[in-house]
Amino acid sequence: MAAAPVWSVDPRTGKQREQVAVEATAQEVDAAVRAAHAARGALADRAVRAAFLRTAADRLEAARDPLVEAADAETALGPVRLTGELARTCYQLRAFADIVDEGAFIDVIIDHPDDTATPPVPDLRRFKVPLGVVAVYSASNFPFAFSVAGGDTASALGAGCPVVVKAHPDHPALSELVARVLRDAAAEHGVPAGVVGLVHGFEAGLELIRHPLVAAAGFTGSVRGGRALFDAAAARPAPIPFHGELGSLNPVLVTEAAAAERAEAIGAGLAGSMTLGVGQFCVKPGLVLAPTGAAGDRLVKSLTDAVGDTGPGVLLDHRMRDNFVAGVAERAGLEDVESPVAPGAGGEHTVSAGFLTVPAHRLAAEGAHDLLLEECFGPVTVVARYEDESEATAVLSRLPGNLSATVHLSEAEAAGEGRGAELLAALTPLAGRVLVNAWPTGVAVAPAQHHGGPYPATTSTSTSVGGTAIERWMRPVAYQNTPEALLPPELRDDNPLGLPRRFNGRLER
Amino acid sequence: MAAAPVWSVDPRTGKQREQVAVEATAQEVDAAVRAAHAARGALADRAVRAAFLRTAADRLEAARDPLVEAADAETALGPVRLTGELARTCYQLRAFADIVDEGAFIDVIIDHPDDTATPPVPDLRRFKVPLGVVAVYSASNFPFAFSVAGGDTASALGAGCPVVVKAHPDHPALSELVARVLRDAAAEHGVPAGVVGLVHGFEAGLELIRHPLVAAAGFTGSVRGGRALFDAAAARPAPIPFHGELGSLNPVLVTEAAAAERAEAIGAGLAGSMTLGVGQFCVKPGLVLAPTGAAGDRLVKSLTDAVGDTGPGVLLDHRMRDNFVAGVAERAGLEDVESPVAPGAGGEHTVSAGFLTVPAHRLAAEGAHDLLLEECFGPVTVVARYEDESEATAVLSRLPGNLSATVHLSEAEAAGEGRGAELLAALTPLAGRVLVNAWPTGVAVAPAQHHGGPYPATTSTSTSVGGTAIERWMRPVAYQNTPEALLPPELRDDNPLGLPRRFNGRLER
Repeated sequence: MAAAPVWSVDPRTGKQREQVAVEATAQEVDAAVRAAHAARGALADRAVRAAFLRTAADRLEAARDPLVEAADAETALGPVRLTGELARTCYQLRAFADIVDEGAFIDVIIDHPDDTATPPVPDLRRFKVPLGVVAVYSASNFPFAFSVAGGDTASALGAGCPVVVKAHPDHPALSELVARVLRDAAAEHGVPAGVVGLVHGFEAGLELIRHPLVAAAGFTGSVRGGRALFDAAAARPAPIPFHGELGSLNPVLVTEAAAAERAEAIGAGLAGSMTLGVGQFCVKPGLVLAPTGAAGDRLVKSLTDAVGDTGPGVLLDHRMRDNFVAGVAERAGLEDVESPVAPGAGGEHTVSAGFLTVPAHRLAAEGAHDLLLEECFGPVTVVARYEDESEATAVLSRLPGNLSATVHLSEAEAAGEGRGAELLAALTPLAGRVLVNAWPTGVAVAPAQHHGGPYPATTSTSTSVGGTAIERWMRPVAYQNTPEALLPPELRDDNPLGLPRRFNGRLER
Repeated sequence: MAAAPVWSVDPRTGKQREQVAVEATAQEVDAAVRAAHAARGALADRAVRAAFLRTAADRLEAARDPLVEAADAETALGPVRLTGELARTCYQLRAFADIVDEGAFIDVIIDHPDDTATPPVPDLRRFKVPLGVVAVYSASNFPFAFSVAGGDTASALGAGCPVVVKAHPDHPALSELVARVLRDAAAEHGVPAGVVGLVHGFEAGLELIRHPLVAAAGFTGSVRGGRALFDAAAARPAPIPFHGELGSLNPVLVTEAAAAERAEAIGAGLAGSMTLGVGQFCVKPGLVLAPTGAAGDRLVKSLTDAVGDTGPGVLLDHRMRDNFVAGVAERAGLEDVESPVAPGAGGEHTVSAGFLTVPAHRLAAEGAHDLLLEECFGPVTVVARYEDESEATAVLSRLPGNLSATVHLSEAEAAGEGRGAELLAALTPLAGRVLVNAWPTGVAVAPAQHHGGPYPATTSTSTSVGGTAIERWMRPVAYQNTPEALLPPELRDDNPLGLPRRFNGRLER
């Protein structure tokens, strides 16, 4: 059987641009994993990892114009957005380099012997070591920031783990280009090219997750695809951690008082957030609880005006476009659902943004309207109008896990009057990030960021964005009774590397 | 159908002592989980949690004599060991109370807005919140320290998570007693009794792991039982973290120089470690790589003498006894395997400790002898005699994950001469704890402890003993753009609770 070709496709026309590669065979996946595994030693030195990450950022920036052009040709996300996303990606690589330099993530804990403990404590010194080869499953919607050189790769390399990336079929040519840049950066620091493997093909992705030398995986994508890989990771003879970001509705609650105070601003802000990147963000607000009555009507009117002004957009591929068109049609056809701005097909290759409304009580109990509580990828949101706040919280309590949950409060509520704190507490179980008077799109790269949440937002308690993402690729090891002469420098009493640590119980920074 | 009775059994006679309870029905499991879930709010205050844990320790100590008596009647572990184990359990409860007081595990990270970042960083404040109800699966071999009031329960309560414990069938009466002590301690601090649920029965254990309100699980036990529960946790509509400690061979490598230097001491130390608690420790050294030749012969001789002097012992139950007898017979029957002290059946209810020897090359490649690389619960170990060190490391490289890996070095090797550091590096991928010139039995409760390791040692990268065990039951949440008035005190700039944290990138302690 001939190897299946991998085509680069123009989403603006649906036409094949060029054949980029062929799908990887089981043998090729095995070779990529073995090459990555062999590169572990070259990443053992933290200084090398940090320098490699910084060089990768420098080289990606140097190649900006051809990379953005290649990305736009395959994703239609436009040069402005893609230039910004590349800048974010480089910022992220450098942020992880800084984290590697600081070394807090190694989590050094040293206990001297203590005969007063029950039972007595011997000399124990613990730190974290890299897990091994990490499989990275790229997302379609962020061809730079959640793809070959994205957060999973940056954090894994920072942790000392080589990666094998399963390229997303929506931007295979860009994936090859970026992988080449990363390998050139590696070579500059004496790290073998195998440190960043790249494979194409659905079957190759399954081979990868099942490979005995793959020690962990990161994934950003759909619930269906992510769950299949999660299941495969769990079914291995030796299961491995699978950090998947699968899907999220990102509910927004607008209080009666907030709507009364600034209905127009909220409506316009919502329109901007839900149509950003043609609605292809994992943190797109997909369900908005807004009050019935005049203030809520003003919000809907403002949303109607702003979304109505949005031109047609191109989705990342034609399958997504077909799913969007079918998904919004099915939702719009439910009883009591209205479409103030009808979402759906635009031209032959485009879609139109829109939104639906529904009385919130329709969502308060199991039924056909539960479809509205499932993520619909693309520029659409559902505005559920509630009669009173208990109706709104009843809907919230039915939601599965989310990446984000947002509340819009009035000035007085934000200042502590009324139920602001209570609502915040009610949103916390729903999501990994809770926002007040803001919109969830735009996920900052920062130490305190948490881009994760209860299932299906993520399959673990970890984050895929922000400083703590590096923790996913490490495991602790404790050394007992080990002579000074044999200790790695990280675990020596005199702390030659100047690492933050816990020393005989006390935190030292 | 009548509810299945739960019997307390005397392992010294195999006779039923009394009926303790009946196996929990699905409805009873549901009620226990709901009661635990309802108790979450009472655990929200860290001060209450710490006080509750300390009172639990006080009350367990106050009830020491009847508890030890009850434990001995069901486990035959003897009052000395059990008194020590109870002391350890109380120490552990108080250690977690101290950890709760300090609050580092909440992992506060605060970022003020930063417009110079790419993209700009908004106000972000992250900490960790309790996951929810934790299912705890008790172990047979530590009726106090890894059971109802053991490390999983102590760390979960410390994290703010109520527990429902699945009692181990080898000590159901003790489980009921200990649960009552914990509930009395809870009541003293206004925490509802449901905060510590207890259910009996195999089916109840499966119901528990599948319950939608159960948010995570801790397990200590066999590979078969643990894997079944892990699989059930992964197969849930919303999978949950399953922290299971399943099985471990705990390899020991004795270098030629170490054997030459102190063969007798090593043989005697090994005998003590492998027969401790009638060989029923999860960190029992189950495979020892010792050199051929005179020094190794002296080691075997010393082991022969010491193990030969060990009297018969009672295992935790008769099923274990039967498995031990069959397991050692099967292993002893393999080609080239010798039994200098034959392990096996003792009297009608007891077993005799022993050990087997085999040429290491028999273990270097797949074959019938792989049985010797599987854990055999009870007082037996396998001494594999190697011709040269490469033969020894070839065997090590074939091992699955372990809780511990040990190397015995000569004085010169420990001082940095020869291959000590190299051997330490070779053992690190095998285990979560690496020991030098020590024995793995005896797992100290300490900040730097790591009691976990690559699968099947554990099903996650976490530990079930030591301070960081509390991390298993938490998930991060980030608050974005949240007004000061609505922030939990943990996340306020002025740090009213005095928590260690990362503030605008800097570690503060």
